[in-house]
Amino acid sequence: MNLLLLEPQEVTAEGCVTLADRRHHHLRTVLNSAPGDTLKVGMLGGNIGSATLKETTPERSILSDLVCTRPPPAKLPLTLILALPRPKAARRICRTAAELGIEKLILLNSYRVEKSYWQSPLVQTERIASYFLEGLEQAGDTVLPELIVENRFKPFVEDRLPALLEGKRALLAHPYGDAIPTEAITEPTVLAVGPEGGFIPYEVEKLLLAGMQTMSLGERILRVESAVPTLLAKLFP
Amino acid sequence: MNLLLLEPQEVTAEGCVTLADRRHHHLRTVLNSAPGDTLKVGMLGGNIGSATLKETTPERSILSDLVCTRPPPAKLPLTLILALPRPKAARRICRTAAELGIEKLILLNSYRVEKSYWQSPLVQTERIASYFLEGLEQAGDTVLPELIVENRFKPFVEDRLPALLEGKRALLAHPYGDAIPTEAITEPTVLAVGPEGGFIPYEVEKLLLAGMQTMSLGERILRVESAVPTLLAKLFP
Repeated sequence: MNLLLLEPQEVTAEGCVTLADRRHHHLRTVLNSAPGDTLKVGMLGGNIGSATLKETTPERSILSDLVCTRPPPAKLPLTLILALPRPKAARRICRTAAELGIEKLILLNSYRVEKSYWQSPLVQTERIASYFLEGLEQAGDTVLPELIVENRFKPFVEDRLPALLEGKRALLAHPYGDAIPTEAITEPTVLAVGPEGGFIPYEVEKLLLAGMQTMSLGERILRVESAVPTLLAKLFP
Repeated sequence: MNLLLLEPQEVTAEGCVTLADRRHHHLRTVLNSAPGDTLKVGMLGGNIGSATLKETTPERSILSDLVCTRPPPAKLPLTLILALPRPKAARRICRTAAELGIEKLILLNSYRVEKSYWQSPLVQTERIASYFLEGLEQAGDTVLPELIVENRFKPFVEDRLPALLEGKRALLAHPYGDAIPTEAITEPTVLAVGPEGGFIPYEVEKLLLAGMQTMSLGERILRVESAVPTLLAKLFP
């Protein structure tokens, strides 16, 4: 946690904030903060800045002198379409995506996504939002990525994807695709990443029909967890 | 597992291999392979190619017609110096490093590495080798990275690091360093990545004295797990 995220309604008229949740525990047990310490804070959806730890007891911590005037780091102009990962991997992948600064995440069904994954409590929207928060706290960002859940492949790809791709660069990560574009992409981009094992040929065909173009990371086949940061780093150097 | 790794001594004079371990279980339960199927295989430390599943029972699987004539994917000319990660994160980070193709991994002590980490069974050399194997099986590679364990910071950095850096590009990932070099690095490189929280100023100074140069990934502070693939992708586009 490199940034303590606060919500606007937590701030009193005097600019104080009382914490009693995991942020309070983090201050005490990980940061070992003492009264008088300056803390890096951010307003959820807003600016970043600092606050002073005024008082801390086992029950609560009180921050004062809250000043948030600097904008958070810029986002990557990227919508990531991701086949729903294994629930246990979803936390890390969603956290990493927020950490790296994506704007929007679309979780999509695919033939190789086990049906049971959709029922897991670990991939419900509130949980995904908590993974995003962890990523923002790590990266020093304040703005949650937008989350869209599409649990049916065909209606999404046929009815909604073409409009989403309009005016954007649209890439499908695929082991047997073209080489990765060598010029840096600064234009808004949509990137689709399949499940472990990849999208099946029918799905690839549908995604290409909707306007996507395949790209490959080369000879090595990477886990989704390694592929996402690698793709983002190569696309936005 | 995109590649079934075999050891030379497992192959009979007739070119057959009998498997009864986790590879056998993977064939049966994940790949659902049936007799006659062609499998992608590699000889540990050698070439990649194919084999035919001759016979499979609940107890064992027998491969025949083993032909390995293609070289594995090229390695990145990279030595990664990594402050020993939290044991639970070590598996993923070491697996990813092997998956991405590093040549050598040096696990280093640092002030912010908890002493107890070194005692964990999860970071003993045989376990690290098993994480490497998982990375190779994923990426379709056959060559294990070299592993060096340096559990004392100062003797390593003062006595052995300078010779290691000779003739190589030497970079220290550091949130407050210079911008990342924009030209692609194809020369042999040594990259040092600190623990969560970073190397302390004394350690940074020692690493710079040994000949390293700081570099930064920008405003976002990444977890080690996200930083490693991001750094490798940017350094070897």
